[in-house]
Amino acid sequence: MQKIRIGLIGYGGIGRVHAAAYRAIPFHYGLRADSIAIAGVATTRLETAKRAAQEIGCPYFTNDYRELIARDDIDVIDICTPNNAHHEIVMSAAEAGKHIYCEKPLAMNVAEAAGMAQAVRAAGVKAQVTFNFRFFPAVMRAKELVEAGFLGRVFSFRGRYHRSSYIDSDKPMSWRLQREITGGGALFDLGSHILDLLYYVLGEFDSVNGTLDTLIRERPAAKGSAEMARVDVDDIALLQARTADGTLGTVEISRMGTGAANDLTFEIFGQGGAIRFDLGDPAWLHVYDARDAEGPLGGERGFRQIEAVSRYDGQRAPDWTMTPDFMRSHAESQYQFIRSIWDDKAAAPSFDDGAHVQKIMAAAERSSEKGTWVRLADV
Amino acid sequence: MQKIRIGLIGYGGIGRVHAAAYRAIPFHYGLRADSIAIAGVATTRLETAKRAAQEIGCPYFTNDYRELIARDDIDVIDICTPNNAHHEIVMSAAEAGKHIYCEKPLAMNVAEAAGMAQAVRAAGVKAQVTFNFRFFPAVMRAKELVEAGFLGRVFSFRGRYHRSSYIDSDKPMSWRLQREITGGGALFDLGSHILDLLYYVLGEFDSVNGTLDTLIRERPAAKGSAEMARVDVDDIALLQARTADGTLGTVEISRMGTGAANDLTFEIFGQGGAIRFDLGDPAWLHVYDARDAEGPLGGERGFRQIEAVSRYDGQRAPDWTMTPDFMRSHAESQYQFIRSIWDDKAAAPSFDDGAHVQKIMAAAERSSEKGTWVRLADV
Amino acid sequence: MQKIRIGLIGYGGIGRVHAAAYRAIPFHYGLRADSIAIAGVATTRLETAKRAAQEIGCPYFTNDYRELIARDDIDVIDICTPNNAHHEIVMSAAEAGKHIYCEKPLAMNVAEAAGMAQAVRAAGVKAQVTFNFRFFPAVMRAKELVEAGFLGRVFSFRGRYHRSSYIDSDKPMSWRLQREITGGGALFDLGSHILDLLYYVLGEFDSVNGTLDTLIRERPAAKGSAEMARVDVDDIALLQARTADGTLGTVEISRMGTGAANDLTFEIFGQGGAIRFDLGDPAWLHVYDARDAEGPLGGERGFRQIEAVSRYDGQRAPDWTMTPDFMRSHAESQYQFIRSIWDDKAAAPSFDDGAHVQKIMAAAERSSEKGTWVRLADV
Amino acid sequence: MQKIRIGLIGYGGIGRVHAAAYRAIPFHYGLRADSIAIAGVATTRLETAKRAAQEIGCPYFTNDYRELIARDDIDVIDICTPNNAHHEIVMSAAEAGKHIYCEKPLAMNVAEAAGMAQAVRAAGVKAQVTFNFRFFPAVMRAKELVEAGFLGRVFSFRGRYHRSSYIDSDKPMSWRLQREITGGGALFDLGSHILDLLYYVLGEFDSVNGTLDTLIRERPAAKGSAEMARVDVDDIALLQARTADGTLGTVEISRMGTGAANDLTFEIFGQGGAIRFDLGDPAWLHVYDARDAEGPLGGERGFRQIEAVSRYDGQRAPDWTMTPDFMRSHAESQYQFIRSIWDDKAAAPSFDDGAHVQKIMAAAERSSEKGTWVRLADV
Repeated sequence: MQKIRIGLIGYGGIGRVHAAAYRAIPFHYGLRADSIAIAGVATTRLETAKRAAQEIGCPYFTNDYRELIARDDIDVIDICTPNNAHHEIVMSAAEAGKHIYCEKPLAMNVAEAAGMAQAVRAAGVKAQVTFNFRFFPAVMRAKELVEAGFLGRVFSFRGRYHRSSYIDSDKPMSWRLQREITGGGALFDLGSHILDLLYYVLGEFDSVNGTLDTLIRERPAAKGSAEMARVDVDDIALLQARTADGTLGTVEISRMGTGAANDLTFEIFGQGGAIRFDLGDPAWLHVYDARDAEGPLGGERGFRQIEAVSRYDGQRAPDWTMTPDFMRSHAESQYQFIRSIWDDKAAAPSFDDGAHVQKIMAAAERSSEKGTWVRLADV
Repeated sequence: MQKIRIGLIGYGGIGRVHAAAYRAIPFHYGLRADSIAIAGVATTRLETAKRAAQEIGCPYFTNDYRELIARDDIDVIDICTPNNAHHEIVMSAAEAGKHIYCEKPLAMNVAEAAGMAQAVRAAGVKAQVTFNFRFFPAVMRAKELVEAGFLGRVFSFRGRYHRSSYIDSDKPMSWRLQREITGGGALFDLGSHILDLLYYVLGEFDSVNGTLDTLIRERPAAKGSAEMARVDVDDIALLQARTADGTLGTVEISRMGTGAANDLTFEIFGQGGAIRFDLGDPAWLHVYDARDAEGPLGGERGFRQIEAVSRYDGQRAPDWTMTPDFMRSHAESQYQFIRSIWDDKAAAPSFDDGAHVQKIMAAAERSSEKGTWVRLADV
Repeated sequence: MQKIRIGLIGYGGIGRVHAAAYRAIPFHYGLRADSIAIAGVATTRLETAKRAAQEIGCPYFTNDYRELIARDDIDVIDICTPNNAHHEIVMSAAEAGKHIYCEKPLAMNVAEAAGMAQAVRAAGVKAQVTFNFRFFPAVMRAKELVEAGFLGRVFSFRGRYHRSSYIDSDKPMSWRLQREITGGGALFDLGSHILDLLYYVLGEFDSVNGTLDTLIRERPAAKGSAEMARVDVDDIALLQARTADGTLGTVEISRMGTGAANDLTFEIFGQGGAIRFDLGDPAWLHVYDARDAEGPLGGERGFRQIEAVSRYDGQRAPDWTMTPDFMRSHAESQYQFIRSIWDDKAAAPSFDDGAHVQKIMAAAERSSEKGTWVRLADV
Repeated sequence: MQKIRIGLIGYGGIGRVHAAAYRAIPFHYGLRADSIAIAGVATTRLETAKRAAQEIGCPYFTNDYRELIARDDIDVIDICTPNNAHHEIVMSAAEAGKHIYCEKPLAMNVAEAAGMAQAVRAAGVKAQVTFNFRFFPAVMRAKELVEAGFLGRVFSFRGRYHRSSYIDSDKPMSWRLQREITGGGALFDLGSHILDLLYYVLGEFDSVNGTLDTLIRERPAAKGSAEMARVDVDDIALLQARTADGTLGTVEISRMGTGAANDLTFEIFGQGGAIRFDLGDPAWLHVYDARDAEGPLGGERGFRQIEAVSRYDGQRAPDWTMTPDFMRSHAESQYQFIRSIWDDKAAAPSFDDGAHVQKIMAAAERSSEKGTWVRLADV
């Protein structure tokens, strides 16, 4: 089994999560400690890169990501930068023949995403988007159930990702509120996650009827500053959507969801049953079986919380009984990516998947501008 | 205090609820047993009218509602018929100078509703729509909080009313699935309730972006029949909506909400806090105060379930500690209507309120046909 | 079907509930309004009796309950007085050949309860204790499941009834805090309910290891008074108990359960599954089936909330979909009692059942005094 | 800052958790990767020790823990063995002047625990028991609130730790069911955790009234074996207990809690408020403030779920918004232990704390044998 040597680009909050998660993989899956290693780290400043290398315990650091990509002792490039750097790094890493693990959303727009998906395909490298929420056991279980036909005919769905990070109008401008850095607002940051989950479980989307709004249009340019800066991305995005199968649903995305810490949920309603996932209660998948009328309880139906903590492939203690969490989902996502290299199989979610989500988001934006439904085929 | 003598028209499930709730009022509010009485009942067949009168214990029954309206010993006409009879009965009762208590939705369409509101105004009678969910203490508390400015600037809202009554495609055709009797489908039957609650708490609506769908388009004409009948009303209605104040929100209405018994909820997000009501947990209003950062707990915020069982005016044991329920909300709704007669004050929710809800529903239907936003001013 | 004429003794909060619930029965079960009637009411003062009669709409009132019992037009005596009057009234009513419906706890002590059970047996009258919580559909469903062997071998149980009615030490003395009127404290008032539910579902108790405590030993003699009166009953009662079948469990009873409105719950754990009832969520019974490993979901187990709203015999709209409540449970309890008269079958819960609960409570008190386990056979 | 070199003894499930948690500390607290290292591992067989060393990435392994203790390049001995080895290892490590981090329960009995507490005190080494549940932010918040007097006078408490790991009677004998290896059953394994939490928050215990029971007394000697082995430890332990402050409460401990995954909860009721912690919902502490009658919501009280995810000292992303979990609590427990070395301050929970919990468990066992209350002073 080839030793996997990772070059990490970007070391903000999410870079740190990636680094910690890689380091936990051997314990979760019974691998040798040295089977996966972060071999180098790049940030924009040499000083932060050095500190990152010390924290990670890796031998190499640089403030020029190109140097990291150029190294022979790197197999995988892991991209944890702001969104506007993804495309450039991916194109460069693909050209260098590196496998690529890239944070979401994949790109700034549909064209970039399509180009990136094409580039990794052409280069023949493994490439995966960090849609880590797919790797909560309860979500994996939901996918299994839908694929097995448990829901029968699907009637409708609902998804939501609410956070409350920006309800304070004194909170100053940040890069997350600037279109030129992020490509989009709550729709991109939070929406990409919930839209990917719905796409993962329900299949491709056909069309979207979206309304986006910026609730606080000006914020202090810096903390305490009297100068105001304009927010040019959405704070809230409300979507109606239809899948390619014709299923109709609704999605709520907001970073002004007062009271929410991390309110990510989806529900799917079908003739045979219903499914609910709630990130706030991640040990369980909530499942309703409309056929239970004939069950051993003698004619009683109701939502059941089925345990979903023991579904990781090859997992070991203490995964069996403990609630899976954010960090654990990253470790599983990374592990599956690394397995795709070891086993030479397709990585998933792929850059094509990332590009599909990008299209949903673009359709939502265009729909909001036009005030009508927009088909993904038209963006 | 004038004795209130009621003439009840219609005695299906909801007629029975109205009858039982009137009879409970004296116990809840400490009135004489004879202060409120059902003096007569009308149904479409003499046989069912007779049985109704025996169950109610009222002296008079008829299969011609006009005779009931014509009687001198009737002060109030209570309308529990299917929707397509509301207009005719209201016009007749208003002309006869009777006070009117009418089940929801008020009418078959906007024109009917406007006519009925005009008629009761012209006749100078008290008229109230049975939006009984307004009378859950937690909803009343939500209204109080919003009016007191607790939410600060309102960011967005979400409402939902899901039932699962029609998920079985073998369930035969019924009057609730026929437009000529109901005027509309889930939107009218369930949607009128949740839309009224949002209107009650948030104020008038400005415009709607709705998508309606009929999920099961044909059903057996009768139980077990091979003949199929066409369903011409919606099973599901997804709305985006904006209030006159500019607040954006989403509403989900479905009678195919697999797993739901009576899933009626709303949430309102504001800069100062958030509010959640859930009919499945009706003893509490869930409230988040964004200002709690300064509170006695020393800097901790979180959703609080505030007790909302003791808010009825003049109420007595056992209302203080027991969870309010469907029947209790009807008794309060009726009591407030009767008080409007005794105290000669405006009844609420009025027929104008009912007509506003009718406009929201009409806008949703037209929006769904056109695929664009529709303003209430344009329906 | 004989018309049932009730004589109601006591018209405080619970008397009012009984009166209202009788009046709702015809609507729930499709009976003639005049099939059940309160024919007279007795309270300790003529003035309150008169007001009660007006509220109820009954022709007769008195301040001497013996006169009510003596009347020929009374079939049933319903006892809603404080506990210390139960014995005397029951003995008198039984002697007069009246059927008896008596609030809980049945008596002041074991000897009284035994005498009352003996008296009604000797008189051949129907007699039932108002353990209304037995008549929540979810509790009835729990009983069915246990009887059907769903739990397999029963491992253990837990019950709880918490209220917070007395946490304020400025709340003055009341009759509920005086042993000579109530016979006991939280154990009698709240404990009788939860102990009856456990006895109903699990069968007879064998022995108890209890600890009772009075947390606030002195209270103002009256509101605002400087004079203090001694509380001579328990505020809290913690029990370990063993059923005759050998099942071990624990019961928590407190009227100082800060934060609780009406926190009544029980859980039963067995080799085949588990059951949870929570009065705060009364539409559902929570059921875990350990055999679901083989079920249609392919090897997943979890608690299921099974709908338990449609279990009343002969019930009608709107019982099918609405959450059952306190008032509804009283109506069902009364209806089953009246059916025992109409059908000449045993009433349940009987006075023997009430006497068994009395023994559990007496064993708990004695156990607390002695600091050891006490068998019911020894009290 | 001294580099901390750990010698890990035992590498079953919990040993692996300890190893992974040490490795995550630098990411959570911003330390250099090499500031904490596992320098060696000992298990009972050379083969498993070698595999452990590979997984951990540590240079040294042995099947003789004495050799590990003897090494100069080890500062801390971390004990993850079965309970019956704790005493011997602690005595040896203390003698060698190593700091000691020992899994719970501390010892096989009170005498061992007292000896160990004395030994580490005499040796002047830092010593901490792995009561990791103390290090959930919500538990830390509960402790703060109680210490700040938030509850006012404490009325009563309740604790519970339920798992369902042994409900299957075909599950064979294991070391966890043998007294000579564990010292006790569910009481020791699960009970030590919940008893420590209650002790941590409420202070020392005075006396216990416990009932222990073994529900399945014989199990197959090995998987599928026809030979049966006797279980000589408890499956369930029900306790009434009084703290030194006189507060009365109840504790339920069971490994036969059908349906439970990891059901660890406690509740404390006081005159000023109430507190609830539930490991199944670990991001929140549930708090009721009886003084809220005067609060900004204008006279409404209710349980509040206060966010408790950001309470770790010096923590960094992503701790701010993600639900804390089992692994995270171990990392914090270890970090606080290591800080006690770096800052030369007392480690907590100390071996004295572990010895107090040992006394509570011993008192529960003796109480169960005698059928009376037992004071901790008497064990």
